[in-house]
Amino acid sequence: MAQNIYDDPGFFKGYSALERSRRGLDGAPEWPVLQGMLPDMRNLRVLDLGCGFGWFCRWARAQDAASVLGLDLSERMLERARAETSDDAISYARADLEAVDLPAGAFDLVYSSLVFHYITDFPRLANRIHDALTPGGKLVFSVEHPIGTAPRAPGWSTGADGRKIWPVESYLDEGARVTHWLADGVIKQHRTIASTLNALHDAGFALTRLEEWSVSEAQIAARPEWAGERERPYFLLVACERR
Amino acid sequence: MAQNIYDDPGFFKGYSALERSRRGLDGAPEWPVLQGMLPDMRNLRVLDLGCGFGWFCRWARAQDAASVLGLDLSERMLERARAETSDDAISYARADLEAVDLPAGAFDLVYSSLVFHYITDFPRLANRIHDALTPGGKLVFSVEHPIGTAPRAPGWSTGADGRKIWPVESYLDEGARVTHWLADGVIKQHRTIASTLNALHDAGFALTRLEEWSVSEAQIAARPEWAGERERPYFLLVACERR
Repeated sequence: MAQNIYDDPGFFKGYSALERSRRGLDGAPEWPVLQGMLPDMRNLRVLDLGCGFGWFCRWARAQDAASVLGLDLSERMLERARAETSDDAISYARADLEAVDLPAGAFDLVYSSLVFHYITDFPRLANRIHDALTPGGKLVFSVEHPIGTAPRAPGWSTGADGRKIWPVESYLDEGARVTHWLADGVIKQHRTIASTLNALHDAGFALTRLEEWSVSEAQIAARPEWAGERERPYFLLVACERR
Repeated sequence: MAQNIYDDPGFFKGYSALERSRRGLDGAPEWPVLQGMLPDMRNLRVLDLGCGFGWFCRWARAQDAASVLGLDLSERMLERARAETSDDAISYARADLEAVDLPAGAFDLVYSSLVFHYITDFPRLANRIHDALTPGGKLVFSVEHPIGTAPRAPGWSTGADGRKIWPVESYLDEGARVTHWLADGVIKQHRTIASTLNALHDAGFALTRLEEWSVSEAQIAARPEWAGERERPYFLLVACERR
């Protein structure tokens, strides 16, 4: 089973305090770009993998999605998601994405935000998602950018010329990275961009958009504390469709 | 016009001394992977953009390609390519890839090795290549990996924990990078992976394979001086086909 760090009390408390947890989609600086990669939501049957507190599920229904299923490994997150949702067309269920089986051809859109970098066997999951979509169905997701996950000792540093640098090493060595993020011992899976895109292709997806996201100049203007955050991309945003 | 550094006498001398210039494809450590991304060459009409000394053009004919056209900006390189080629089905011509026009639907395969990172307007070139291919035709190319081209002060460094690191900065700021490589003032164009793949998609290509290449463990075993070269990818290898 995948690591269930989100049910760790300390982690959960820290995660709940994040701006993206308190404010939802509008508290996630990458959301405007990710939203722009989504199809028209009207009448779509939507699956959210790693739905957390259900922010996206409720947003999808507000855009007239026909139905939304949110899956998550964390009981704590599902509990709050259910408490904050009153819509019969939204349902939540507990699932381990490392082992999940999904109904065939049941969805028009699969969405996932910052979850797949916890998955060990991404090719397996990509195949399951492919089969769960109707032909032409869309998969839109975000993960931490591998420039960020590669280093075994991550953290900003200073280069020879005094510039702020991000130290890349071990990029070609895929697999577990144990980091401190809200709690000790959080395990993320480092995977190259090539491995992610080739797994999607091999599963039967056609890539339609890739974004290597960092904050925009406009966002830095509004939040000066983000100055210098464009030296490296933070998230990889991917849109593809079932061939 | 694109910078013509290859006709600089000092650069040309240095370039001619590289293992890949002396030994051809077998002297390029990425060649086995790039070769694996190529289609069956038999009877294909092939275009090589940035053909250099013509090594790939001659190899393609040895694989029974129907015809090969090699284009390059450098008169010096074309001169040597012509001198080393005796095959009426191979032709060479001078062209600036920033401004080139190509005949419509004239090729089954377009190939390019380590040239597109000199091109300022890649979307324009991607459109020209698309139109020059037959439907289903293939484009296979390599460029320097943007992790390598991003920094304004490139060069290996040492991280906080003593590991060899590659300093990433300015990744999101695309455009010219002036470097020293065989000569001073060599201008390369830094472009993110996302920009490259989105330009290909927008031009009408479907991505079929992406490789973030570095030397393999087997290559390091054979060439111990390459130890530590897997901390970052060197080249981006791309295979796509005309939709």
